[in-house]
Amino acid sequence: MDGFAVRAESTFGASPDRPLVLALNREAWAVNTGRPLPPGTNAVIMIENVNFLEDEAFEIEQAVVPWQNVRRVGEDFVASEMILPSGHRLTAYDQGALLAAGVYAVDVVQKPRVLLAPSGSELMAHEILRDRPPKHGEAIEFNSVMLASLVEQAGGIAIRRPIVQDEFDPIKQTILDGVRSDAHLVVINAGSSAGSEDYTAAAIRQLGEVLVHGVAMMPGKPTILGIVENKPVIGNPGYPVSAVLSFEAFGVPVLEIMQGLPHRSRPRMRAVSARKIASKLGREEFFRVKIGRVGDRVVATPLPRGAGSITSLTRADGIIRIPTFSEGIGQAEDVDVELLKDPMDVDRTLVCIGSHDLTLDVLANELGPHSIFLSSSNVGSLGGLLALKSRSSHFAPSHLLDLETGQYNWSYIRRYIPDIPVRVFHGVMREQGFMVAKGNPKSIKCFQDLVRDDVTFVNRQAGAGTRVLLDYHLDRLGIDPERITGYHLEEYTHTSVAVAVLSGVADVGMGVLAAARALDLDFIPVAVEQYDLVIPEEFMGDEKIRIMLDVMRSPRYKERVLALGGYGVDRTGEEIQPLP
Amino acid sequence: MDGFAVRAESTFGASPDRPLVLALNREAWAVNTGRPLPPGTNAVIMIENVNFLEDEAFEIEQAVVPWQNVRRVGEDFVASEMILPSGHRLTAYDQGALLAAGVYAVDVVQKPRVLLAPSGSELMAHEILRDRPPKHGEAIEFNSVMLASLVEQAGGIAIRRPIVQDEFDPIKQTILDGVRSDAHLVVINAGSSAGSEDYTAAAIRQLGEVLVHGVAMMPGKPTILGIVENKPVIGNPGYPVSAVLSFEAFGVPVLEIMQGLPHRSRPRMRAVSARKIASKLGREEFFRVKIGRVGDRVVATPLPRGAGSITSLTRADGIIRIPTFSEGIGQAEDVDVELLKDPMDVDRTLVCIGSHDLTLDVLANELGPHSIFLSSSNVGSLGGLLALKSRSSHFAPSHLLDLETGQYNWSYIRRYIPDIPVRVFHGVMREQGFMVAKGNPKSIKCFQDLVRDDVTFVNRQAGAGTRVLLDYHLDRLGIDPERITGYHLEEYTHTSVAVAVLSGVADVGMGVLAAARALDLDFIPVAVEQYDLVIPEEFMGDEKIRIMLDVMRSPRYKERVLALGGYGVDRTGEEIQPLP
Repeated sequence: MDGFAVRAESTFGASPDRPLVLALNREAWAVNTGRPLPPGTNAVIMIENVNFLEDEAFEIEQAVVPWQNVRRVGEDFVASEMILPSGHRLTAYDQGALLAAGVYAVDVVQKPRVLLAPSGSELMAHEILRDRPPKHGEAIEFNSVMLASLVEQAGGIAIRRPIVQDEFDPIKQTILDGVRSDAHLVVINAGSSAGSEDYTAAAIRQLGEVLVHGVAMMPGKPTILGIVENKPVIGNPGYPVSAVLSFEAFGVPVLEIMQGLPHRSRPRMRAVSARKIASKLGREEFFRVKIGRVGDRVVATPLPRGAGSITSLTRADGIIRIPTFSEGIGQAEDVDVELLKDPMDVDRTLVCIGSHDLTLDVLANELGPHSIFLSSSNVGSLGGLLALKSRSSHFAPSHLLDLETGQYNWSYIRRYIPDIPVRVFHGVMREQGFMVAKGNPKSIKCFQDLVRDDVTFVNRQAGAGTRVLLDYHLDRLGIDPERITGYHLEEYTHTSVAVAVLSGVADVGMGVLAAARALDLDFIPVAVEQYDLVIPEEFMGDEKIRIMLDVMRSPRYKERVLALGGYGVDRTGEEIQPLP
Repeated sequence: MDGFAVRAESTFGASPDRPLVLALNREAWAVNTGRPLPPGTNAVIMIENVNFLEDEAFEIEQAVVPWQNVRRVGEDFVASEMILPSGHRLTAYDQGALLAAGVYAVDVVQKPRVLLAPSGSELMAHEILRDRPPKHGEAIEFNSVMLASLVEQAGGIAIRRPIVQDEFDPIKQTILDGVRSDAHLVVINAGSSAGSEDYTAAAIRQLGEVLVHGVAMMPGKPTILGIVENKPVIGNPGYPVSAVLSFEAFGVPVLEIMQGLPHRSRPRMRAVSARKIASKLGREEFFRVKIGRVGDRVVATPLPRGAGSITSLTRADGIIRIPTFSEGIGQAEDVDVELLKDPMDVDRTLVCIGSHDLTLDVLANELGPHSIFLSSSNVGSLGGLLALKSRSSHFAPSHLLDLETGQYNWSYIRRYIPDIPVRVFHGVMREQGFMVAKGNPKSIKCFQDLVRDDVTFVNRQAGAGTRVLLDYHLDRLGIDPERITGYHLEEYTHTSVAVAVLSGVADVGMGVLAAARALDLDFIPVAVEQYDLVIPEEFMGDEKIRIMLDVMRSPRYKERVLALGGYGVDRTGEEIQPLP
């Protein structure tokens, strides 16, 4: 305490009636909080409790007892007491405790060094991107960058080696150099499947021992675990998602063991599955999911399962594991989700399931500064309404045209979700049309061109608003859909349709101008349509919904949408009433 | 897929009855997974499905359709799609997605720079410990090290400045230099209370504006928040726990806002309080607690509340906040705990409440490699038995001597926890005695010396086994405890008693040899006693208990205990049966 150090005995007898006078620097010495007591003193009088007199003295009205207002040496810890157990990861607090105890240096566990050798003759080092974009046929090597980041997260040091050719001798030499270097773990990525160029297993077998070749997980199946000259060697699968999940399953635990650390598992959360998920028997399958709290349930919506889809990881909020001997899980079934995000963020997530539009990206981006995450799944307008019915989402973007009334959405809402009170807010007006290759080589101009023998179409899935729009026009014009080549070739988003056209899979598809423009395709306008958000009444009180509508009504949001091209924002954010 | 790229149309008609022959490098080209298709091809025949013929050709028994076994450009994402929203913290996966999309560089938010200026004339820079231990009266400055670590955890860059004298001008100059440097936040630590040398608030007021002086939290009350030349300045309190908790409450959120990050809150867990916790009205009080799962409940046991006790943070598993307008919480009341550890570790924690002994540190250390955390609270032997009764702990160390039978613990168990079936395992034999200052200046030799006028005693709390031992001997010798000066001065551990003797608060106290030896005190042996572990039958099936008993029976554990001095380990880990 700030005040005066005294011998307590010299204060005995002080009272309000009989104040006691103490002489400064003879009977009492000024001290501040944290300072040691002057010799011979054993208590402190708080500065608030003294009345200063002239002449280097003060008066007190109350005695102090020995050791009052004094912290004793060793109050916190003393010699021989354990400050921290061994094998403990030092925190900010621990550093303070060590210094407080006079410990300046402690023995620590060496960080394990991990040699990461990318292999594959088709690969280009990503550093080339510094100078120019990739050319056709060049595949950028980025698995080693992700693995390096995982190594560092796990407390290790990553050493990224140059790309090794997909041939036996270079791979063998890389392994040998690796285990003879100061690395503690050698990872060859990839070259671990059963294809023609997969020399990693053969090389490990020649140099040491292959312990495991192939694991019952998916993605990640072709993992190789081996030992060469007493060092662990991992042949990691090449597809990006496989590379990451396999390394997390096998590489990271090795690094934890090397450091004597307990296994860090991800936080978990119970959720219900928004959809049925089928899984193959005989392997543990890892599904990436988006999650969010809708009403009183946490809902998990699966993302595409392809091992090549790195965005299925970057867009994921969590991972569901379907056990080896399960054929999958049903809709609304309880699942255990390993979270890839802060559990608190789950409550900050708006779940959007429905029709796809590029403006959802703009919305997601603008919600970020409000600490709201937009988790959107593209299942088409009708799928969106059905997701509201199963209470799997907070809102559904929809653009379902009623062919009789000419009004969007309301008649579908009445038919498909009559029991759910909803409100509808206007999103954007958008231009729909034909997307064709640059220069329109097949001269496609109208719906009649779709039935030509030399034209292949790419369609949207049943239930998509764009599909409804197509069918409306075909019906109006009396065109039999079965005459259109590719009518049954379905894609789930505007951009997927655009990609099908760009890559030559199809000559034409329907979609919004923004998608055509993004891929530099030509565009023949067909209609302007209304793209709206259907929001259940029960979520209108949710602050996230309120903020989202505010954002949509902001000039900044509208400007960004206009910059995409093909959009109208005059009534964006306005409530749309049903026709009487 | 690994195989051969073809025009799908050239395979039409192939069947098992009518295999089709394709010429290599004319009709079919070898490709591997991940490679681009040769021009003019649109499908891949898997290598498993071809029969090689001589002469650069192979046979197939099944046609492929266009785009079979081909991943299309843009399958994962295409131009114009958002890869990541702004204001997002990059993960390992994100780096992969960016490179996959050809993005080599992204704009990032600048790391905020935080200037940390320790102030206090009594402080020594911790770097001095590199060369020598601290002298009497030197206080090692370590708050800035903890704060620097917190700054870095929060994504900032810490700049630790030399220690500033506790005087107005140097503090004012430090603030001025700080806000005119490239730092984004200036922290003066400490100099924020209302004592004589607290110039921080005055200096901020003279240079800019004090927004807040004093906050309704404890520890952390004397926090100052100010603005000088448009930069935030924090006057952080000086007690280590206050320094940390205040910076976490006010500094870290500033850094998050500067980076556009959402507030990261700690994982939370519901628990029940093992004890009543009283709190003052009018401030939010932060209690550090140990937690563990005992049976089906998570139990939180409060640690010492002193703001100077940095070990109350390093030993804590979590923090409980008692709201401003609450007077505290009752025993077994539900509380919300902010976890300082991995939520999974809660299930790996053995909760030990009872008598204190230095061997518990050895045990905690040896359990580490088994990923078991020992969470021990010292409340004395009887307190330990009562904790078993309230199902707050997994086991209770106890050394309660039955004066009639001469047996330890069992009669107390029958009296205090008759309804709880327990088993008892032997811990150690240990030497109890008088701890006196080096050289035994008061010539204390036996219990009779305790009643001497010139001798001050320091006692253990009621319910402690050592207190029972003392009372037993006093009773046996017919000594009235009220004649002993300091009989009512109570400490909770052997080391606290030793510290009381070392610092001159008392001349003598009772405790184990190891505690005396640790603080270099003289020791007069009084008795050898038995220190055991009382374990409820219901936890005997818990793997953590099994491993603990195995560890106690290991030669390595016994060796380490013997090294402390004053212990016998001949029967350590053996089960102790009650007398018939």
